[in-house]
Amino acid sequence: MMPPKGQAFRAKQLGQLARMTHEMQVQPEIGDLLAACETDANLTTDPLGSATVNIRQLRRNYQRATKLPGDLVAERAETASMARAQWAQARKDNCFDDFRPWLEKLILLQRRAAECYGWPVEGEPWDALADGYEPESSARQITGLFAPLREKLVVLVQRLQTSDHAPEPIFSDLELPVDRQHHFVRMVAERIGFDFSAGRLDQSVHPFCSGTHCHDVRMTTRFSGSLVDALSSTMHESGHGMYAQGLPEAHLGTPMGDDVSLGIHESQSRIWENHVGRSPSFWAWCLPRIIKHFQLPADRISPDEAYRAVNRVQPGLIRVEADEVTYNLHIMVRFELERSMLRGDLSVADLPGAWNERYREYLGIEVPDDTHGCLQDIHWSMGAIGYFSTYTLGNLYAAQFFERATRDMPDLFSEFACGRFDSLKSWLYQKIYQHGQRYRADELCQHVTGQALSADSLLRHLEQKYQSVYRID
Amino acid sequence: MMPPKGQAFRAKQLGQLARMTHEMQVQPEIGDLLAACETDANLTTDPLGSATVNIRQLRRNYQRATKLPGDLVAERAETASMARAQWAQARKDNCFDDFRPWLEKLILLQRRAAECYGWPVEGEPWDALADGYEPESSARQITGLFAPLREKLVVLVQRLQTSDHAPEPIFSDLELPVDRQHHFVRMVAERIGFDFSAGRLDQSVHPFCSGTHCHDVRMTTRFSGSLVDALSSTMHESGHGMYAQGLPEAHLGTPMGDDVSLGIHESQSRIWENHVGRSPSFWAWCLPRIIKHFQLPADRISPDEAYRAVNRVQPGLIRVEADEVTYNLHIMVRFELERSMLRGDLSVADLPGAWNERYREYLGIEVPDDTHGCLQDIHWSMGAIGYFSTYTLGNLYAAQFFERATRDMPDLFSEFACGRFDSLKSWLYQKIYQHGQRYRADELCQHVTGQALSADSLLRHLEQKYQSVYRID
Repeated sequence: MMPPKGQAFRAKQLGQLARMTHEMQVQPEIGDLLAACETDANLTTDPLGSATVNIRQLRRNYQRATKLPGDLVAERAETASMARAQWAQARKDNCFDDFRPWLEKLILLQRRAAECYGWPVEGEPWDALADGYEPESSARQITGLFAPLREKLVVLVQRLQTSDHAPEPIFSDLELPVDRQHHFVRMVAERIGFDFSAGRLDQSVHPFCSGTHCHDVRMTTRFSGSLVDALSSTMHESGHGMYAQGLPEAHLGTPMGDDVSLGIHESQSRIWENHVGRSPSFWAWCLPRIIKHFQLPADRISPDEAYRAVNRVQPGLIRVEADEVTYNLHIMVRFELERSMLRGDLSVADLPGAWNERYREYLGIEVPDDTHGCLQDIHWSMGAIGYFSTYTLGNLYAAQFFERATRDMPDLFSEFACGRFDSLKSWLYQKIYQHGQRYRADELCQHVTGQALSADSLLRHLEQKYQSVYRID
Repeated sequence: MMPPKGQAFRAKQLGQLARMTHEMQVQPEIGDLLAACETDANLTTDPLGSATVNIRQLRRNYQRATKLPGDLVAERAETASMARAQWAQARKDNCFDDFRPWLEKLILLQRRAAECYGWPVEGEPWDALADGYEPESSARQITGLFAPLREKLVVLVQRLQTSDHAPEPIFSDLELPVDRQHHFVRMVAERIGFDFSAGRLDQSVHPFCSGTHCHDVRMTTRFSGSLVDALSSTMHESGHGMYAQGLPEAHLGTPMGDDVSLGIHESQSRIWENHVGRSPSFWAWCLPRIIKHFQLPADRISPDEAYRAVNRVQPGLIRVEADEVTYNLHIMVRFELERSMLRGDLSVADLPGAWNERYREYLGIEVPDDTHGCLQDIHWSMGAIGYFSTYTLGNLYAAQFFERATRDMPDLFSEFACGRFDSLKSWLYQKIYQHGQRYRADELCQHVTGQALSADSLLRHLEQKYQSVYRID
């Protein structure tokens, strides 16, 4: 929305705000107060008690903040603001060279930040940045999860593409009025458990979920594509929104009232978008409501056709339009490339070539231009390096959590088919929402599923589901 | 946009922000630095020099801020936030009693604030609050301007209502697509001089002009009514917007880069909305463009009919829908009532009765309910007492400035008829925009027009124009 002449001053404003926020975060008094708390046995006896958790997490945040000099924080924020505008223009003009110097500067600044944070001997600079999005994650751990996943996904995608039973895209030619779509997706969001007395659903170019606390959660969706696009975006954001609304109000403003990590947040959106919203039982409930709400001919679409239609797999160029299977391949490309750029193994000038090469290898498609290639995402232009992998971590956590939920509640899918979603939401509240940052991501995974995170649940889910959708023996 | 459960916390947030802002404003160091500047002859020799002006205005702001205790500032902000939500609901429910206790509390808090500020012996509490919107204004001065104006306006309205030549409301049955309206009003805003590379025009329920500096000015308009409503709202906000864009960039962030007062700001919007946008020469240029843009039959409306149609006078209940003549009567009602409530002469419980009585007396109409009466405006619910009069001050300044402009530039109207508006904008820049707060409002009026502010220009303008529109001898 920024008018062009406003860009430079906005960047300065954001730089200044980043500097001031950082100054508040690193006040020595915070360190003194934390030290006093840490030696107070009353506060720290129960390792899972609220005080212990808050002290642990505030110490972590304080330590991270004090490692960066204020000048770097301000310069990075200012540069990111300018770079974002340059990226938007470069993407429009399909001119990577216009964005290149900005990305080079951001990589340089983030490399400097990583050096300030430091990383373990067996680690690398990427780890230091990823820790800001997904605490305790590392490139090594991510690679351990992603490598087997990629191998199997590439094979699965190839098998699906040679199938003679690809679903028909029956929703794609269905043009429905936007205001009726809005009513419908709002109804679904409310039905699955989003509390509209403590939040909103509005419209934007890119869907998001934001807000300042559990009683004021703002989500958006978009109506640019088909109803299915708006519906799955809404269910995705509702998953984020229910997590945000379910965080414990009593701990508002402290780590105990905050979410665990981006990966855990994303798991909440993916559970509702994919595991609920693309299940046969959901469509058994939803389709008749679509037919009624939009006054469609009753015999035009069957629930099974609808279910299969929302589960078409098609390798494409654009991450945000990707299906459940190929999505993770898009993420892997980005993870590998940003890691190499930060390490210095890949120069920014060579990014487009490396990008296109990986799309050929992982997705089997040719990238026609940088606008549909390495310029498509906003993240790097904001300096967000170490962020993308949290999307696939979210998919992994989602599959592992949901698999456990279906074991704990065998009737879950029958309930979905009747439009009842409260058991799942209550389970998520009990297992995840109410704990705030009591558990770190890996601990939470153990706590909820009894196992460490792995790619097994997601692979089982995808292979079983798509063999059925594509009628593969 | 606030979800109901979010209200209480938002109020606390705003209270806290008000407290923190106030703490920054009253730091003793500011007082020391100002004192040092005030004794530095280099900074204060030229009474109209930038340094002198900045020191004078910063001293004024500092003095005002230090008179209030932080607790009052925070409580007022928190109460106003809660009260605004209560007002919105009470207006919806047409239930003044639900809003009454909140208004009582706000009046109490503002009375306490006024006592902290203090007022001159010959003044009253209202003056202390109005000084925050229109520096140096007083109820006595406002009454001196408003009393003769009201007397003559009441007579003029009565004369117009008995005329047999009321213009036809030819635009009111013209339903035009909103996106085409948006294109059209944007074209007009650009044509009259709003710089879209340093600002935007978006859509909202109530039009406004906002933004953070001269290169980032955000205005909105609305498309709820006819094209004329959207057009005049857009020209109004463009007037505010051009003033904001024209403030001297070199002085950004200091009083020299800031606007003079709400009254002066409003004069800029009214010049473009009323003196330009409701003139025959503007419609000579605009009407053919409307006809072409919306593909209307060419002979359906003549420029003279269009000019007369946008100048219909009709006493009504709602201020924001009022015409150029009756608008000021709406303001006078509010000014008198808020002044009485603050003085303690009128209890909040008696507000609806007093409101309805004055509407009968000044506008000759019966108020059917409080939603269309004393609950219609948001201002009091935000604690804004002393604000309304700046709207009519704006009309007075606008008329006096514009009268001078037409004397300085006799070809102005012929230029409008050719779609040329740059002379007027340049004149406003020379006379007003570029000076920031160099002159106080009364000084600026002297500087621009050679005379103190009076109601004469506005009355001349209205009487001449409406005698012609209504064909009164």
